[in-house]
Amino acid sequence: MSARSIHLNVNVLSSGSHGASWRAADGNPLGYVQIEHYQEIARIAERGRLDAVFLADALAIAFDPRTNPSWALDPAVIVAGMAAVTSRIGFIASASTTYSHPYNIARTFASLDHASHGRVGWNVVTTYDERAAPNFGDKNLPVHADRYGRAVEFVDVVQSLWDSWEDDALVLDREAGRFADAAKIHAINHQGPHFSVAGPLQIPRSPQGRPLLVQAGSSEQGRDLAARYAEAIFSVQQDLGEAKAYYADVKGRAARYGRDPDKIAILPGLFVIVGSTEEEAHSRRKQLDEIAGEATVLRRFAGQLGLDPAQLDLDRPVPEHLLEKINGYMGTRGFVEATLSLARNRSLTVRDIIARGGGAHRLVVGGPEQIADTIQHWVQERAADGFNIMCDVFPSGLAAFVEHVVPELQKRGLFRREYEGTTLRDHYGLPRPPSRFAQQKAPSESEARQHWEVAL
Amino acid sequence: MSARSIHLNVNVLSSGSHGASWRAADGNPLGYVQIEHYQEIARIAERGRLDAVFLADALAIAFDPRTNPSWALDPAVIVAGMAAVTSRIGFIASASTTYSHPYNIARTFASLDHASHGRVGWNVVTTYDERAAPNFGDKNLPVHADRYGRAVEFVDVVQSLWDSWEDDALVLDREAGRFADAAKIHAINHQGPHFSVAGPLQIPRSPQGRPLLVQAGSSEQGRDLAARYAEAIFSVQQDLGEAKAYYADVKGRAARYGRDPDKIAILPGLFVIVGSTEEEAHSRRKQLDEIAGEATVLRRFAGQLGLDPAQLDLDRPVPEHLLEKINGYMGTRGFVEATLSLARNRSLTVRDIIARGGGAHRLVVGGPEQIADTIQHWVQERAADGFNIMCDVFPSGLAAFVEHVVPELQKRGLFRREYEGTTLRDHYGLPRPPSRFAQQKAPSESEARQHWEVAL
Repeated sequence: MSARSIHLNVNVLSSGSHGASWRAADGNPLGYVQIEHYQEIARIAERGRLDAVFLADALAIAFDPRTNPSWALDPAVIVAGMAAVTSRIGFIASASTTYSHPYNIARTFASLDHASHGRVGWNVVTTYDERAAPNFGDKNLPVHADRYGRAVEFVDVVQSLWDSWEDDALVLDREAGRFADAAKIHAINHQGPHFSVAGPLQIPRSPQGRPLLVQAGSSEQGRDLAARYAEAIFSVQQDLGEAKAYYADVKGRAARYGRDPDKIAILPGLFVIVGSTEEEAHSRRKQLDEIAGEATVLRRFAGQLGLDPAQLDLDRPVPEHLLEKINGYMGTRGFVEATLSLARNRSLTVRDIIARGGGAHRLVVGGPEQIADTIQHWVQERAADGFNIMCDVFPSGLAAFVEHVVPELQKRGLFRREYEGTTLRDHYGLPRPPSRFAQQKAPSESEARQHWEVAL
Repeated sequence: MSARSIHLNVNVLSSGSHGASWRAADGNPLGYVQIEHYQEIARIAERGRLDAVFLADALAIAFDPRTNPSWALDPAVIVAGMAAVTSRIGFIASASTTYSHPYNIARTFASLDHASHGRVGWNVVTTYDERAAPNFGDKNLPVHADRYGRAVEFVDVVQSLWDSWEDDALVLDREAGRFADAAKIHAINHQGPHFSVAGPLQIPRSPQGRPLLVQAGSSEQGRDLAARYAEAIFSVQQDLGEAKAYYADVKGRAARYGRDPDKIAILPGLFVIVGSTEEEAHSRRKQLDEIAGEATVLRRFAGQLGLDPAQLDLDRPVPEHLLEKINGYMGTRGFVEATLSLARNRSLTVRDIIARGGGAHRLVVGGPEQIADTIQHWVQERAADGFNIMCDVFPSGLAAFVEHVVPELQKRGLFRREYEGTTLRDHYGLPRPPSRFAQQKAPSESEARQHWEVAL
């Protein structure tokens, strides 16, 4: 390819990212609990040669159920269902390090990697939604620093468990009855401030060795966690200049951790409303906005920022005194900062900010050229290595993206025409990591024998 | 049907229940990490009109990896993969109440129930394998009584979460933008000794209302938990007399809890080695035993009972002084007691005991008539309502059962020829339970409005 090759995921949120998605004629209000809905999305994404279907997650009702579907089924269940009807598309599922245990997460993702033949990634989230806490016996979420400290240790334990069977541990000698080489199956014996985990994992190493590690860090600690571990980063960016700064910062941090910055894909969210022409796209957007109604649009915007919608006027800028309130809001750092970057511009009204995706991801409305232009521009400017695509309505919005935008990106040499490999690591051009235990001196056969004779 | 209609699950353990299964020519040593292996099993089971595929679980390596595959992938991943390629067969997956959280389990099983259109059951296990403890930061498992106390509370919380959306909570009025009726979505506000869970669950009630609740209790507390909650019970029985006593005891306890004993299916494990004729079956068994070798067979038997194989002689009874040791072993109560029932008979050698499935489930080797006879006899004697079938080798052993035994059972009027419904509850003849909140006075619209306005 002449230009830099990009990566595209589709970010599946319930019925779609537009507030009116479930009410649209082509929307599916109950898609979020229907496996067939997700399977159709996965098939369309695979037809478009996308890298992966991305699944966010919540551990409580995330939207007011009087007016909106929420999300979602257990992401592991969705991924397993999508994997069963596809062969190439990857899957990135979010799972919380705050409200789960590393042994369970390591097993679930290794299982998904086996079941999908190497097409799975884990989006490491620390859970930012306070409403999750009381479902798990907490009054409030642990404070931000504690969540990240736990997350770093959690990721380390999970990776160790993924590595606990060396790649050549399996012997499978039927004649001699030798199933595996116990010297290549390692207890991890992790002892840390948050976890004590003996290991090994109960199943052999998965096809990718380690499922892809994805992170969405905007805060100081989030960026650091991402730079240390993530192989793909999902970010929130409204402004090209800030996106470039974020990109340079995270790649620089990664280099300081001794990593190759080119092996980390930075993927801002991009909310697209696509038409076969620019007019068609704007008319689609207008229709959806009309269904939603201004009050709903305003309420969603205010909700993302912890504001009372009554304090906002669609035709005026965000009042100065609320900027500080937004800045102090305990929601996702990325959304807060991206919106502040727009709201500080006093010439933009609330309506203008919402029109650009304020309170959420950057919004672009257009035909194939406009959308390809903005994708290409951000990638050339080193503000992104690709995007996490949000669609207005599922599945129609994704189908439009695949039908209209993907061919335009392929024509420009920016995007693959065929998958070159079979695993998610292949799609991202990432090597299969060796087990950390493979580089160590293996325990002797007699040491290993002793371990299993004692243990079993 | 003239006779009493029975229920049959297939219990999928790795490559099969025979110690040589992975080494057999038709065995699959890596089936336990291959979703296609499970999908093939599910398709065969569905062809045989079985009630469900049953998945045990472990949270550590369960067998010596030098000589045996272990189990298994995350059961939720397996079930989701099997559900995607079948339409009627049910799935019962084990999940631990000791090493997971009720909110997560409630969500995972409700998700599986949505994804399978109502074909899922949860086998409630408390984890008996000490090797799991250090994977979760424990030196040892909590003592038996504590595990069961936690389990009772856990099940109650999970059921409340499954009920938290009333069946008619969804409004789905696109025109008016009304998604759900908040007055019919209930916080559960559980506060107990082990858990504090606010709820509601984040997704609407699943197709079965509540996934089927399955239990495998042999201890005093296990029987009680089963009698209180279980809709199907997986037991270990070697002896008809003891099986009848167990059956009568559990059904009696259920009646004392105000439940209809006919709505609880008691299903002992039954290890079958099937041939088209009796000779074929015995020859198959002989071949498998020869592959395993006597040492392996003895080691597995000893391992199930916490004994040193060197203390046992295949051609003599279990030494008297070891009976007490077996009785005190901390493994599954069911296995221990079923084996003791054989070992106390001083005329049986260790070889005889193993031949009947000692240390494991009752073993029957035979052609269609022999196996149908034993199934029919136990059901008529009210020792069982059906069986959890274990197969020697997957998938061939199950295929033989479906090809040879199922038609014989159908001919005798003991087993369905076609599914009569679409859900697992339908297969078990169980009604769909109403939400416990539906019987309460709903909060007023203004109370509900206030809750969501504060919360969201």
